[in-house]
This record gives sequence, structure tokens and C-alpha cells, in this order.
Amino acid sequence: MLLWLKGCQLNQVVTNVIAAEIIKKKRNSHSLTNDEIQFFINGYTKGEIPDYQMSALLMAIYFQGMTTEETLSLTKTMLHSGIVVDTSSIEGFKVDKHSTGGVGDKTSLILGPIVAACGLAVPMISGRGLGHTGGTLDKLEAIPGFNTQQNLTRFIEITRKIGTCFIGQTSEICPADKKIYALRDVTATVESLPLICASIMSKKLAEGIDGLVLDVKFGTGAFMKTPEKAEELAKNLMAIGQGYGKKVVSVLSSMDQPLGRFAGNAWEVYECLEIMKNKTFIGDDGYDLYSDTRELSLQLSAQMIHLSGKTSSISEAYQMAEESLLSGRALKVFHEMCQLQSGRVESLPLSKQSKAVQATASGYLQGFNVEKIGIAGITIQAGRQMTTDVIHPTSGIEFHKKIGDVVKMNDIIYTIHGDEPHLFAQAEDLLKLSYTIGPNKPLQHMLIKKVLQ
Amino acid sequence: MLLWLKGCQLNQVVTNVIAAEIIKKKRNSHSLTNDEIQFFINGYTKGEIPDYQMSALLMAIYFQGMTTEETLSLTKTMLHSGIVVDTSSIEGFKVDKHSTGGVGDKTSLILGPIVAACGLAVPMISGRGLGHTGGTLDKLEAIPGFNTQQNLTRFIEITRKIGTCFIGQTSEICPADKKIYALRDVTATVESLPLICASIMSKKLAEGIDGLVLDVKFGTGAFMKTPEKAEELAKNLMAIGQGYGKKVVSVLSSMDQPLGRFAGNAWEVYECLEIMKNKTFIGDDGYDLYSDTRELSLQLSAQMIHLSGKTSSISEAYQMAEESLLSGRALKVFHEMCQLQSGRVESLPLSKQSKAVQATASGYLQGFNVEKIGIAGITIQAGRQMTTDVIHPTSGIEFHKKIGDVVKMNDIIYTIHGDEPHLFAQAEDLLKLSYTIGPNKPLQHMLIKKVLQ
Repeated sequence: MLLWLKGCQLNQVVTNVIAAEIIKKKRNSHSLTNDEIQFFINGYTKGEIPDYQMSALLMAIYFQGMTTEETLSLTKTMLHSGIVVDTSSIEGFKVDKHSTGGVGDKTSLILGPIVAACGLAVPMISGRGLGHTGGTLDKLEAIPGFNTQQNLTRFIEITRKIGTCFIGQTSEICPADKKIYALRDVTATVESLPLICASIMSKKLAEGIDGLVLDVKFGTGAFMKTPEKAEELAKNLMAIGQGYGKKVVSVLSSMDQPLGRFAGNAWEVYECLEIMKNKTFIGDDGYDLYSDTRELSLQLSAQMIHLSGKTSSISEAYQMAEESLLSGRALKVFHEMCQLQSGRVESLPLSKQSKAVQATASGYLQGFNVEKIGIAGITIQAGRQMTTDVIHPTSGIEFHKKIGDVVKMNDIIYTIHGDEPHLFAQAEDLLKLSYTIGPNKPLQHMLIKKVLQ
Repeated sequence: MLLWLKGCQLNQVVTNVIAAEIIKKKRNSHSLTNDEIQFFINGYTKGEIPDYQMSALLMAIYFQGMTTEETLSLTKTMLHSGIVVDTSSIEGFKVDKHSTGGVGDKTSLILGPIVAACGLAVPMISGRGLGHTGGTLDKLEAIPGFNTQQNLTRFIEITRKIGTCFIGQTSEICPADKKIYALRDVTATVESLPLICASIMSKKLAEGIDGLVLDVKFGTGAFMKTPEKAEELAKNLMAIGQGYGKKVVSVLSSMDQPLGRFAGNAWEVYECLEIMKNKTFIGDDGYDLYSDTRELSLQLSAQMIHLSGKTSSISEAYQMAEESLLSGRALKVFHEMCQLQSGRVESLPLSKQSKAVQATASGYLQGFNVEKIGIAGITIQAGRQMTTDVIHPTSGIEFHKKIGDVVKMNDIIYTIHGDEPHLFAQAEDLLKLSYTIGPNKPLQHMLIKKVLQ
């Protein structure tokens, strides 16, 4: 049908006709060429292709998927819709971590300082929370004054100085992704593997990094419910990164239970500070409730360090990371970062009001519906349902029990924290439905399932 | 997820969130409730739900389909987005015909007058051509002065007076369909059975008719390529009409070759006038090249008449229709309609320039790619690719051969007619590729495959 376009000037009508043909091609399960993907994405970013054609294409991609080649083209076009951060003035290996999201997943705040203290550069561009999962920017902004809106010059300057800096996406980076992501959010086209991969990888490649560690979650609180699906996502992400000549590894980690002791922004910062201060919090069952956050942070740090070639084995890299933590050097970097980004971490606000959610049966804790816990977090405004929602940084949920723990009737499973106790009832209703208790001891919960190189 | 909406004011953001949940529900293959369909369609018509959410829903419907119940809800919501024409002042049985579209399909212009002359009312609201298929409005507007933009009062008045009137869709009728159809056209979501059914039936039900005859085409020039697919479409359309208590029959007719002697607006009007004047045009193979247009018009007229209960059999209804044609009463109605709608049929313009497309082989004509013929028509501007394209009413294609005819080298297969001979070359190239000649006599071509009651 593109016959009619021969010799036509590429005016608005003709652009729309070509765009409709591209939508139809994808709808009919054909692969799009690099030129077609560029035409569509660049036209959309420039405002020449309207939202309604983009959303139709996104839904067609949701159903028909994309080949690795198409996904690479999409990533490349999105990446080059903006600038790639010039990190050439930063010496040494530049590495970042990306997590596919979860509840209580706060490792970035710990591993950034750990790895920076080991002499690597961690230039981290993070996102906000949406739906049941949290976001690094929201956590940092729970620290009074913390400014995540640094310009790129300052971003490079801080990273050069202390080894790490955490900022939000700027308008110069992947504007195509920004525009497309906002549209996906309101058109039910978020859950598409190629779209997820292109969105994640275009932003990460724009950071100008040499290596990337992916924390790909699986379980009831993850986007991918099974390890198999998580592995598929990980392989797709890695193929793109490696296609760009980057070093990439993936850690498949469980989101079948919330990570650590808290979910909720200021509470998670508090937990990270405690861990970086090498404190523990022994729960009713006699073990440290910070241990899984600490362990995952160290494992991911070790992967980041080992990617740089600094160490001859993962265990050596793990030791280096642990030493960075135990010595207090990681905490020092965190404090320096707060200072350089205007955060008054000493004034971290925590709420005083709380409500316990008690067990209504005895037995072993069998498992969690982590997504439900995340949604309970939204009801107390620890998270947001819509991008326009306002976060209450002091709201949070505390976890007292983990999978396999013995639970007696009336034991506290969760504590709801916050400054607005009238919001607690709805959260409590959801939390009561978010765990199961049974008579038999379940299989031991494994935090890390696999590492893919 | 609609949990968050409890107690919220239904502002723009909340409307968008509900809309996104409805898109997701359909995307995930669940049936939408009547309330959800009403919320979405009415919100879209009022401009509260944006184009980009509607196009995402349309694409999800394209992939996931709709149940009969959903399609009925969609039809009803679209129908009630506007007014239903008040035909109560018109006496007798009110009947219309709808064709799913083809090349050279001009029967409306003949059967409207035939059936009106038999004492029934045919209030016909028609559309324009798009893509390879023609439209009744474009054909009538080839008659100098013919006004298809009558208001509804005048529409009823003319129908009461002479039994029929042909107008275009007004802004009062199915505004939801108008808006949705324009969007489908640019988002590759035209080819969806429930969307097609709801679009056709909402407009037809808005005419205030008692009965409807559907001419559902199959073949290379039809939307449905096989009789089986056409039957499926017919059954879906009939279910909706019957769900509304209307009398509906479907005629499955072939679009494996163009209908009659001409395609092209003024040329088709000319053919209809010749048939209503009871003229014939004997081609090289010794038969009347008007015969299939005439026969299909009479068969459809017979179904329309029989639907009213006026006759005890189809053959009686056929005789009545034929008598209306032979007596010249149908022609008289046509002339009256032209006069009342300001058309000067005596001044019908026909082009003088032409170019023959000759056979490059000898044998039997095996078949046509009718869609290609329609596209050739667009190159000479007998049809339009985009809704904004301008039609040249005097451009057309003449058909000299039909399936099964003996063809000798250099025999004329088509004649291209028009006032702009510089456009002929591209049409000729397409027409050369639009037929096949082979050594064996093919199976006899059947115009009507089946009638579904």
C-alpha cells in the first residue's frame, strides 16, 4: 500500500498513513525493519506521530512480540533520541545495577557506596516507584533536602569526587522512553518483554557505563512470577547489553517475600543506615531481620566489582565488598553523597503511630502475596498508584516474620507505621490476606536462585 | 485495582485509570460488562477518554475479540450515542440493504427504486468509498447537483413521498461510530469482526427500519476472502439485528470478480440507468455484461420485499421486483429522487479518454485479484486511499471479460476511462497483474452462494 506514497511530500497525512501501515505490519506478526522502527519512534518523539498511533503499535507489540533484532533497533532508537552521558572524565570502571523491582528492595542505597568505596564508579540514574514496587528516588527523597535533580555536569563531578551519585532521569536522556513509558502506563501496555527490555536498557546504556548487574526478580512480588520467566527477561536484557559491547551479568533473586525489615521510604533509608553501621536487628525467631538486605547488597556488589576485572573470583570480590561495609567506608561514602546532594540524613523523619497485624492461626509461615503487601503500602501512601500521587515518606510496613518461621496465634506478622492512622484499616485488611500459615514446615526460602553470565 | 477509586471524584485522572483497567481486562482476554463498555464508549465520545486509550482498546479487541453479548452492548452504546431516526410517520414496512463492499457493487441505486416502487419504504443512509471498495454517496454525487446532505426532516419527507431517499450519515446519527471509525482507519484496527459488526449495525439500527438485507461479500475483492468467513460475519451481524427484534436476512455473494460492466462513479450510475431502462450490453462472448448487476439487484430486492411479509414466497417477491424494473416504475422513482435531491441526471458526465488493457496470453480467464482492480481504481482517482482524497467522478474501469470466458491474445480485458490520461500507466500496470489466464476451463462462477435467514 506504500505505493501511494511514491513521490509524495512527507506531510502529516502521509506520515499517518505510513505509521498505520507499520502498525498493521506488526499486528500481522511481521518483523519491522530498523528504518520502520526509527521512523515510528523518532516521529513520535518529535510529535509528528500522534499518541493514538503509538498506543496501537504498543498494543500490537504486546500481542506479537519483537525479535531480538527488532528489540535492539528499538533500544538503539530510544537511546539515540537523547544524549549518552559523557563519562570519559571519570577514571576507572563504570558500573551500575538495575533491579526489576520489588517490595523492600533497597539494595541500591547500600551497594552504590560499597562499590564506590572499592574504587569503582557508580553513576546511578534511578526511577520512582509505581504500582506495588518502590523506587530509589522516592527513598532518597525521604531524606530532608536530598536533591535528586542534579544536572549532568554536577552528576559527573560528584561521581568523580566520591565514586557515586544518584539522580533522576533528566529530559536530555532517552526522551523517547519518557514519552512512551507515560503512554504505556495508561494504555495497559507495560507488561511486554521487548518494551520492558528496550526501556530499561536504553536508559542504562545512556549512563555511559562499562558494566551492568541486573537484579531480575521472580515471585509473587515481581513482574515475572516464576524463575523461568525471570530468566527469559534476564537473557533478553543481557543480549541487548552485550550487543552494545557491555559487560552484563544477571542475578535472579526471589521476591516471594519482602526484602529485609521494612518497606516504605524513610524506613528503608533507616534500614540501609543500620546495615551500613553494621547493626543487626534480631527478631522473635532469633535471627537478624536485616540479613537478607545485607546479603543481597553484598552479592550484587561482588558481581559489580568482579565485572571490572579487579578480582580473580567472585568470592574475592565478595570479601572486598564486605570489607568496604565492615570498615565503615561505605557509610562514609553515603554520608558524603548526602552532603553533596544536600540531604540532611541526621534529620531522617520516622513516624510515631503504628498498628500491629497479628496472626489469626498458628503454624509455619508458608508464603506471602508480596504484590498485596505492596498494594497495602499504597493505601498508606508509602507508594503510588498513579504517577501524580503524592508519597508520605514516613509511611511504611515492618516485617516480623519470614517464610518458614514458626507463627503462634496473635504473633505480630506486620507493623503498619505512619503519621495518618486513619489510613491503617484498609492496609490492615489487605495485609491480613497477604500471607498464609500452614501446619508443615515449607521448603527453605532461597534468596538467590541463579547468576547468569 | 479499582479499589483506589472508592470515594474518589471521577476526575480526569481517575477516568484515565479506570479506562486503563478496562483496556487491561480486555487485553487479558476477559469479557467487558455492559457498564464498562458504556463507560468507555460514552467517555470517548464526550472527549473524556483520549484517542490513545481508545486505540489501545481497539487493538486489544482486534486480538481478543468480543462475545456476542459484548458486541450487543457495544452496538447499543454506539447506537444510543446519537438519535434513532423517527420513521413513525412513514407508513408501511421500512427496509434497507447493506453491503460489506466490493468493486463495481452498485446495486443500491437500482434496488432502492425497485423496492420503493413496490410500495415499501427504503430510507437509506450510506457511506463513502475507502480503500479498494466504492461507496454509494460517491456514486450519487457523480450526478451533477445531487445533494446527499439532506437533513433528517427532509429525508423522511422524501421517503414518504416517493418511497426512498439516499443521504449521508449526519452528525446526529451514531457520533460514537463516526469518531471510532476515523480512529480505526489510522490505527490498523479496521479488520475486527465485533468492531465491524457494531459499526454496521449501530448505523443501520439508527435508521429506524423494520428489516434489513445484508449483502455479505466473499472473494478476492471482499473483506472476507472465503464464503466461510463471510458466513461467520453474516451470522454475527444477524444476531445483533435479531437481538433488536429486526427481520434480517443475509445473501452471501461473490466478489471474486467485479460486478457488472463498470467500476467508477459516473460509469456505475450510467450502468444502473441502462439497467433501469432495460437495456443490455452484449460483450464479445455473446452475453449481457449488465446481467450480474441486474440479477443481484433483483435477488436483493426480492429478499427485501419478502421480508415485509407482502409475498408468500421469494419467487413471488422476485417477480414483483422484476415487474417493477420492466415496467419502468423503478426508473421513474430514480428520476423523482434525483429531482427531489437536486441531481441533474441528464447531465451525467462521462470521460472521453481511454486506454485498453489487452491480454498477453490465450486461454480461459481463470480469475481476478479484485482488490488489485480496486487499487488500480484509486490510481485514476475513481476511489480514495485516504478519507481526504478527492474523487474524479468520471474515472472508471470497464470489464470486458468474466471468469470462464475464452480469451485470445490481444483481446481487451479492461478499458481504463478518465479525463487524466497521465494517470493511466500506473493503473494499467496494476490491471495487468489482476487476472490470470490458463488452459483449462474453470468451474462456473456462482454469483450467489447462499441465503441465510
